[in-house]
Amino acid sequence: MRKAVILLSGGLDSATTLAIAKDAGYDCHALSFRYGQRHASELVAASQIAKQFGVSAHKTIPLDLGNIGGSALTDLSIQVPQEPTEGIPVTYVPARNTIFLSVALGWAEVLKATDIFIGVNAVDYSGYPDCRPEFITAFSLLANLATKAGVEGARYKIHTPLIDLSKADIIRKGLNLNLDYSLTLSCYTADDQGRACGKCDSCRLRREGFEAAEVADPTHYQ
Amino acid sequence: MRKAVILLSGGLDSATTLAIAKDAGYDCHALSFRYGQRHASELVAASQIAKQFGVSAHKTIPLDLGNIGGSALTDLSIQVPQEPTEGIPVTYVPARNTIFLSVALGWAEVLKATDIFIGVNAVDYSGYPDCRPEFITAFSLLANLATKAGVEGARYKIHTPLIDLSKADIIRKGLNLNLDYSLTLSCYTADDQGRACGKCDSCRLRREGFEAAEVADPTHYQ
Repeated sequence: MRKAVILLSGGLDSATTLAIAKDAGYDCHALSFRYGQRHASELVAASQIAKQFGVSAHKTIPLDLGNIGGSALTDLSIQVPQEPTEGIPVTYVPARNTIFLSVALGWAEVLKATDIFIGVNAVDYSGYPDCRPEFITAFSLLANLATKAGVEGARYKIHTPLIDLSKADIIRKGLNLNLDYSLTLSCYTADDQGRACGKCDSCRLRREGFEAAEVADPTHYQ
Repeated sequence: MRKAVILLSGGLDSATTLAIAKDAGYDCHALSFRYGQRHASELVAASQIAKQFGVSAHKTIPLDLGNIGGSALTDLSIQVPQEPTEGIPVTYVPARNTIFLSVALGWAEVLKATDIFIGVNAVDYSGYPDCRPEFITAFSLLANLATKAGVEGARYKIHTPLIDLSKADIIRKGLNLNLDYSLTLSCYTADDQGRACGKCDSCRLRREGFEAAEVADPTHYQ
């Protein structure tokens, strides 16, 4: 079995990505971050999802991006919008996916794995730059140059199985793979019990996805 | 004054890089990592150097790469070689510069800075893949694609003022800029008092640099 590192936030997209990697036969190693996110209850969801899928390992790395700030998710003085906004929203976390993929790359190299999965989506998404295909392509090139394994001939592949899918298609795919979406948490301002606000961009995209897929929304709302 | 983020380990190269950035007129923001390195006393050196150069800010981010391991610097069960070895040595830390540059990129974006300095060197070095010019070029391309600022037209520049210099040239440059090298710490196995072993690869390259530059070596040895 080939080993793979799967970035797992605990949200709908990353959980579906894990389900896809598992279904494809990879020996899954899940990676989460305690990055100072206001919705840290997503990490409880991540643990439950990792357990449900029987991953070989699940690491949660403490890396407080609140040290840097600049995002409504890591700086409590910046409010999370409750309605859609113009352009890239203030919930964008500077360089987040670059940082997370870099640590995933380090772990992959130690595991002698060359497959990394990330649940980015460039269809029903918030316009974050580090969710686009051109970013992923650039990171793949970097990964081969950055590592000892790359110098020795390894070729890293950053898998983005959701990148071209609508949210409804993602949900259908997950349900086909027996993913229990009630375990996942997408809300940016979830409370300590993991209940969603139903209003933020992430909640909106998720709710519209369940509506479009014509399946019941299992989200626990506040 | 233009703001810049300078990666500062506390070693000879990064201290010289800070001196060069300061001399070039940048408003310097120094960034260090408590990454589980066995030579954590380099962080004491980093603080002293940052203070000496009057940086506007100095952040030390806790990010324990011992969680991942795979290097003699973060896994105490792997010994640091006391003599030169073939190929890329076991002191290589998987994806380290990728991870450090990614966090530097995030901080730079928050500061509205587009200049990042890193003291990599591809002449008198240990062969680490993430010190080579092609790695730096790839990271620059990634930075523009990864960020909101990049999407809005910012062009990041990763400055590597030491990349083509010999260790002796680096030392001469630093001395011209009044850098006190007795403050710097390069040794991989320095003791708690910041005294160097004199035998590891990093000590060897440093000592040979002072010899070639024909200046007294101010290193505190054990």
